[in-house]
Amino acid sequence: MSVTPLAWENQTLRLLDQTRLPDDEIWLNLREHRDVAEAIRSMRVRGAPAIGVAAAYGIALAALESDTPDRNALLAGLERAGETLEATRPTAINLRWAVRRVLSAVKSAPDADAIKARAEAEAMAIHREDVEANRSLGSHGAALLPPDPLVMTHCNAGALATAGYGTALGVVRAAAEAGQRVRVVATETRPLLQGARLTAWELAQDGIECTLIVDGAAATTLRSQAVDAVIVGADRVAANGDVANKIGTYAVALAAREHGVPFYVAAPSSSVDLSIASGDLIPIEERPGEEVLSVAGRAAPTGITASNPAFDVTPHQLISAIITERGVAREPYVTSLAEVLGAVGVAI
Amino acid sequence: MSVTPLAWENQTLRLLDQTRLPDDEIWLNLREHRDVAEAIRSMRVRGAPAIGVAAAYGIALAALESDTPDRNALLAGLERAGETLEATRPTAINLRWAVRRVLSAVKSAPDADAIKARAEAEAMAIHREDVEANRSLGSHGAALLPPDPLVMTHCNAGALATAGYGTALGVVRAAAEAGQRVRVVATETRPLLQGARLTAWELAQDGIECTLIVDGAAATTLRSQAVDAVIVGADRVAANGDVANKIGTYAVALAAREHGVPFYVAAPSSSVDLSIASGDLIPIEERPGEEVLSVAGRAAPTGITASNPAFDVTPHQLISAIITERGVAREPYVTSLAEVLGAVGVAI
Repeated sequence: MSVTPLAWENQTLRLLDQTRLPDDEIWLNLREHRDVAEAIRSMRVRGAPAIGVAAAYGIALAALESDTPDRNALLAGLERAGETLEATRPTAINLRWAVRRVLSAVKSAPDADAIKARAEAEAMAIHREDVEANRSLGSHGAALLPPDPLVMTHCNAGALATAGYGTALGVVRAAAEAGQRVRVVATETRPLLQGARLTAWELAQDGIECTLIVDGAAATTLRSQAVDAVIVGADRVAANGDVANKIGTYAVALAAREHGVPFYVAAPSSSVDLSIASGDLIPIEERPGEEVLSVAGRAAPTGITASNPAFDVTPHQLISAIITERGVAREPYVTSLAEVLGAVGVAI
Repeated sequence: MSVTPLAWENQTLRLLDQTRLPDDEIWLNLREHRDVAEAIRSMRVRGAPAIGVAAAYGIALAALESDTPDRNALLAGLERAGETLEATRPTAINLRWAVRRVLSAVKSAPDADAIKARAEAEAMAIHREDVEANRSLGSHGAALLPPDPLVMTHCNAGALATAGYGTALGVVRAAAEAGQRVRVVATETRPLLQGARLTAWELAQDGIECTLIVDGAAATTLRSQAVDAVIVGADRVAANGDVANKIGTYAVALAAREHGVPFYVAAPSSSVDLSIASGDLIPIEERPGEEVLSVAGRAAPTGITASNPAFDVTPHQLISAIITERGVAREPYVTSLAEVLGAVGVAI
């Protein structure tokens, strides 16, 4: 497993700062839960499963930080730490799931030392289980793909978004490990360019072919190329199957349906929120507008291929009217355009 | 009319360098047709109608540049200049239309001086007529909108993309001039960010409210906000109404149809190519991958608002399967998710 976004060493959470990729590989050493909260909020660690694991270690750090010998005071402190961590990002359910799982594990511990030991052990279990879950779901997903598949993905649901191996990219890796030649089309995923900066980077580490496109090119790529499947991750899955995922996912899903391309969501069970009936009830995080207004200083890693069609074709069936200076044409355009324009349009 | 991308002064084509907007307003003074070709190729001037007008002046400059007194030699030189100009960008039909219109106008001129005079006069006519066409189509389009409309647009089909006033944004301006409070949602339009750099900038010049979104947010915005119409420009309209326009247009059209939002194309008749049966026959320009791989140094103008939802919701109807480590769930998810996951998903 070549890529991992975090490690637990000597009661320190080591985090690969994903805001610095692909230019720099900077590892942060975090020893306080508030630093973990900051790292999640500023997306130094991101991806629903990865922030779940990081938050679990955040609770473990909150326990280790504390010098109170009082069991109840320590538990109350951990509850507050949990609230701080949960408040960082509202959409991914794994964050809340992981925090509550650790809090639940320590509840029956008899004293402060046992609370610290159990918090650390539970966070490590969540960490370990996430990698195992990704390998399982990767194998389930790879079975859905044809030989030598061309897979489109959006954002980064890879090793970097999890404890390792990845969800959507876990399926890709499982297919590659099964001997398939897998090629990936990655959308760059504005505003923070996780596709360009992270997906392209981690696939390059594993030698998996990846072509980068702008988000707007996904629909036309699904029409013009033989994409076998779209596979994305999830920040939260509602009970009815509605999926909250990185902005832009919905547009890709619409285009996939239009062109008969299977659209798969790869997610661990910790991303599924059966307590919520539909996607309408999932809180959607609104992030700073500055992320959209500014794009300076970000780029894909070197050695990556990009596809860059400047235009796409919108079929007439999707167009309500074509407005010209000579009037408005509507379906059937094959007669209305010539009528509205007279001979002008063929003047060439 | 506050914004115009080009002007003809003293037999010089003055071009606003759109690659430098919104940071700098740099006007270029072009006196040779090869410089016009370079400006079109490098998108210093862009937008189908605007490059048509620029190319028409390119032929006029080619005539004025020439010092041959020989009528036939001059005509042959203009044909070559036309080929150079037409070769710059393949998709927008206005380029070819404008070049051929000027070449056709000079064909019967009796001598070199008459050729020069007619080329200049025809280019000026194309320039003037484009503004008039935009005002007409703006008025036709505004009649399709409800009072105080919220309009979504993609790329820049504004004053900067034409001789002035704009096509899609011409409709917006016509509605504003008719006393409506028009608000615009502009997609940023990667890779070259014409929405962020140009549409947001020119609407700010005219005091029209504009909110910027990433391209991936268009679909979810059409679902969650009361957008009255999507209006885009066109680089070429085929006889059946298929429209080639900036990459990403097709994805917006799919989402508009999904949510019952009218999707209008605003284009002058010079963009309609009745000689082509469908969009499949329109050549799509492939531009350098570097435009996708690199984004440094570009940003929206100051004072612009952005909307930045970090996630969107993909309805279950668009999802072929949800792959978890416990197996694969398919419709109806409302039962299959619980079956596949057992109680795990509700563990919170």
